[in-house]
Formats: sequence, structure tokens, C-alpha cells
Amino acid sequence: MSGYRFLKGHGTENDFVLLPDHDGAIHGPLAAERVAALCDRRAGIGGDGVVRVIRTAALAAYDAAAAALSGEADAPEWFMDYRNADGSVAEMCGNATRVFARHLLEEGLVPAGQPVRIGTRAGIKTVTRDGDTFTTDMGVPVLGPSSSVRIGHVGWPATNVDMGNPHAVAFLDDLSEAGSLLEEPAYDHEVYPHGVNIEFVVRRGARHVAMRVHERGSGETRSCGTGACAVLVATALADDARPTDEDVTYRVDVLGGELTLTWSTDGHVHLAGPALLVAEGTSTL
Amino acid sequence: MSGYRFLKGHGTENDFVLLPDHDGAIHGPLAAERVAALCDRRAGIGGDGVVRVIRTAALAAYDAAAAALSGEADAPEWFMDYRNADGSVAEMCGNATRVFARHLLEEGLVPAGQPVRIGTRAGIKTVTRDGDTFTTDMGVPVLGPSSSVRIGHVGWPATNVDMGNPHAVAFLDDLSEAGSLLEEPAYDHEVYPHGVNIEFVVRRGARHVAMRVHERGSGETRSCGTGACAVLVATALADDARPTDEDVTYRVDVLGGELTLTWSTDGHVHLAGPALLVAEGTSTL
Repeated sequence: MSGYRFLKGHGTENDFVLLPDHDGAIHGPLAAERVAALCDRRAGIGGDGVVRVIRTAALAAYDAAAAALSGEADAPEWFMDYRNADGSVAEMCGNATRVFARHLLEEGLVPAGQPVRIGTRAGIKTVTRDGDTFTTDMGVPVLGPSSSVRIGHVGWPATNVDMGNPHAVAFLDDLSEAGSLLEEPAYDHEVYPHGVNIEFVVRRGARHVAMRVHERGSGETRSCGTGACAVLVATALADDARPTDEDVTYRVDVLGGELTLTWSTDGHVHLAGPALLVAEGTSTL
Repeated sequence: MSGYRFLKGHGTENDFVLLPDHDGAIHGPLAAERVAALCDRRAGIGGDGVVRVIRTAALAAYDAAAAALSGEADAPEWFMDYRNADGSVAEMCGNATRVFARHLLEEGLVPAGQPVRIGTRAGIKTVTRDGDTFTTDMGVPVLGPSSSVRIGHVGWPATNVDMGNPHAVAFLDDLSEAGSLLEEPAYDHEVYPHGVNIEFVVRRGARHVAMRVHERGSGETRSCGTGACAVLVATALADDARPTDEDVTYRVDVLGGELTLTWSTDGHVHLAGPALLVAEGTSTL
């Protein structure tokens, strides 16, 4: 089969089609239609999104964020050109950064044994590898006004954590209280005028929680990297465990696996978890 | 990436992972766990099922149906070793026969310009190609006692057509009457002791219908080949259009595309539709 190269991978079952296109010569501006066709789970390969693997300098021809980054002295060579499954441009995806970094390392596109710096539309992200665990510095959380979320007639208070995208974190006694999550829970539109990702959390033990997430525009997903960051922050605040003197680490179970979140003394949240590449080949889509 | 070869394809969005394993040396008995891992839509490649491409004589070492077929004088060289997404062994899949035949033709594994004979656990199937349309002889329908199907408080009479697997075909005024189909409709367990595939049908024009299907064990799917056959037969009977003097042809729209069904004067039902191969590569799953 002729066609272009792809890889399929996932991080805690948040799954992606990777498109190597180092100099932008294969996909050019990358049509939304191609992304949607690739992500179609029946007629395509299937994925939550597409990650084009492209040099920052090459993407600069099509993308304002890459162009801005490209002008900086310390611009990373590689840019994670992330697209949502519908083809729309996305700023960032925490789980994808791990898969992207693993791919760069395995292909020898970045030096082994060093942190991998990645260009994204939300700025430069740094990923470190320790065996099969990849850790991404997700930046500093921003707290907002508390509100509440509601499913049917049941409501819960919700902590407001922004990780570059907005989150509302609610604590339940049992994850089944969130029901099927086939419909979006109700939230305060004045607090979240652009919509919100909603996390439901239960305690599993000391510094160990489990979560489900309803992602804005996508519905319930198997994992959400920024959502896990927001859950860490909300739980640490509820436990009065701010990282003033030492790092605060929680295990966060998601439907698709297990993540380790650390709120470090410099205020940054670090997302650690697996990254797997399960197939590669060529596609004509 | 080392690993074994796969292809991804679909027929009216009933999608499959093909595993070339011509002499059975790659996958041996083919573990259910590997099939399930491949069909996982997040952690794997994703598919409604796996189709191993294997010589009938090679599969005979592991499979009673292949062994029986292998002993016959006119045994087809190639066997469609079909597995459900959970890894269980399946007898047949009409939509998969088209994709399987296309693959055999494109790889030059069978002579071009001739009907493709395929071994299956439901016997020998013959597929003919006309451009991008592939037609499979699905055999002779067997009619059973009528019954009814019900969703909530609404019920419909249902025609009983067996295409090697059981079907109940109900006619609606509008496909939305079937609702979300997230739960299995109620049916008569005395008529269908082993469960049933349920088709809901609306008229679209002269010899043109549209259907939705709830597949036994799978829920609603984008397409079901034997279901489309059953719908043809039930509709033709309702229209008093038996194939006594000439073939009877209907267009049957499914969620994943368009099929053409013919009930020919020899009593056989022929399923015609597209077959696409969209990606190929290697996997380590």
C-alpha cells in the first residue's frame, strides 16, 4: 500500500494517530478532513486526536504559535501539532506529550538521556523519561471561584482549577453517583463562560484517588491529563497539603490506567504515566 | 517497530483488523487475548473483529471447520478465520467477506478476474468483484415463526429470517422510534432461544429501505451483512415480491453506507457493497 506513514499510540488509553511529517512536505497545512478521517473509529484508524510530528521551523509556515516560537532563541526543534478528532486545532494534550516524547526518543530525533523539550500551542513543554514512565511539566495551576456541578437533582461543590483549560472538580462518595455521563453535567455558566471539563473524584486511600472525567465537547473519556492535574490540586487543597516545604504526590486512577501527579515546591504540576506505541504503518486516508 | 503485519479495513463501517498469517506460523492458534487487544479501540488498533488470512490447510491444525473443509476436493485455498472483538470464534461475517476478497485480490493471492472462493466456518462463500463493488453469495434464507419485538411499551410484529444466524425484522414509520438502542429490545425467547439480531426498517422508496440493527452481544452497529439480507427477505415478502420469475433487488441503507441486496431466482441472497483497506503496517500487540 502506498500512502503516508502513521503510528498509533496511547497514554492511559487516551489514543492518538501520529503523523511523521518532519518538514511539512507530506501534509502541508494538514486538512481537517484528513484528521477526521484518520480519527474515525470505524472508517479510519481511530483516535482521540492526531499528532503531527513536525519541526517547529516547518510548521511556522502554517501556524502562528509555531511561528512565534520559531523566532525564539531556545525554540525546541520539534513541535507537537495536535488536532482534535474533528480536525480542529488544539492547544495541548498532556497525555499526548508523553507519547510524542517517546516517539522522538525511539526514532533518535532527540538526544537520549536528556529531557525532551517540545513546542506546543501552549508553549514549551518538557518531558523526562524514567524507564517506561514519562513525566511532563504541566505548568502552574490557577485557582478560580468555586461553584457547583449537578447531575439531575443531585449537586456537588466544585473546585475551580485552570491548567490552561478550565476544570471543575467534584468529590463523590462513589464514582457510580456520576451515572452514565452520557449527558454533560450542569455547571455555572457565569464561572465557566467557555464551558468546562468536569472531574468526579473519590478517595481510594492516603494520597490516592480515582476519577472520571467529562471533557468539554467530547463526553466521558478514558483519561484526561490536565483533568488529572486539576484533581491533584483540588485534592491537595482539600487535604491542606500545599507544596510549601516539599513536593506533594498523589496517585490518580483513571478509567484507562494509573497516573502519578506531583505538585512541586516551585508551584508546577508534573504529570507522570505510561506512553505506548502499538502499531505503525502506512495509510491512504 | 518489529512485530507482525496487519491491515485495517471496513465494509460499510463494519471494521476489521486483517492478520496475514498464510501458514499459521505467526499466530499459531491465535490467542483470544491478542484478538481483544487488537480490537480495543483505545489501547489497540480497533475493530469489530479480526480476520486472519490463512490457508485452509494450515488452519486445519487448529480448527475443526477448517479441518473438515480441508479434506474436501474443492476446498478453497484461503480461509477467513474470523474472530469477534472479544476474541471468541465466529462462524461468518458478510461484510468481512468483501474486505477479505479484496485483500486476496490486491495481494495477488487469488487469480484476478475470477470469483473468489473463501473458506469460512459457515462453509464456502463466493465473492465476485465489479470495480469497487464486491458481491457475496450469502446462501438461502430460512423463514421461521413470526413474533414481535418491543422497546419499552411499544411493540412491533417481527419477521423471522435465519441467514445462518437468527434475525427479527420489524417495520417502523421512522427509525427514531427505535430510540437510542442502548439496551437490547425485548423479543420472544421461545422463538429465539439463543438470542436474536433485531433489525428496524423504514421505507425510503420503491425497492429502497433503510435499517438500524441491534446485534446480539454487540449492541447497535453501523452495519450487519446478514441483517441486511434478512431485511431484504422480510421486505420482499411484505411487498409480495418473491423471486419466482426474476431476481428481486433492494437498496438497503445502513448507518455506515449503502448495500444492494438481491434475492435471486435460485433462492440465494446476494450481498453487494464496498470494501476498503485504509491502512497497513506492523503491530506489537
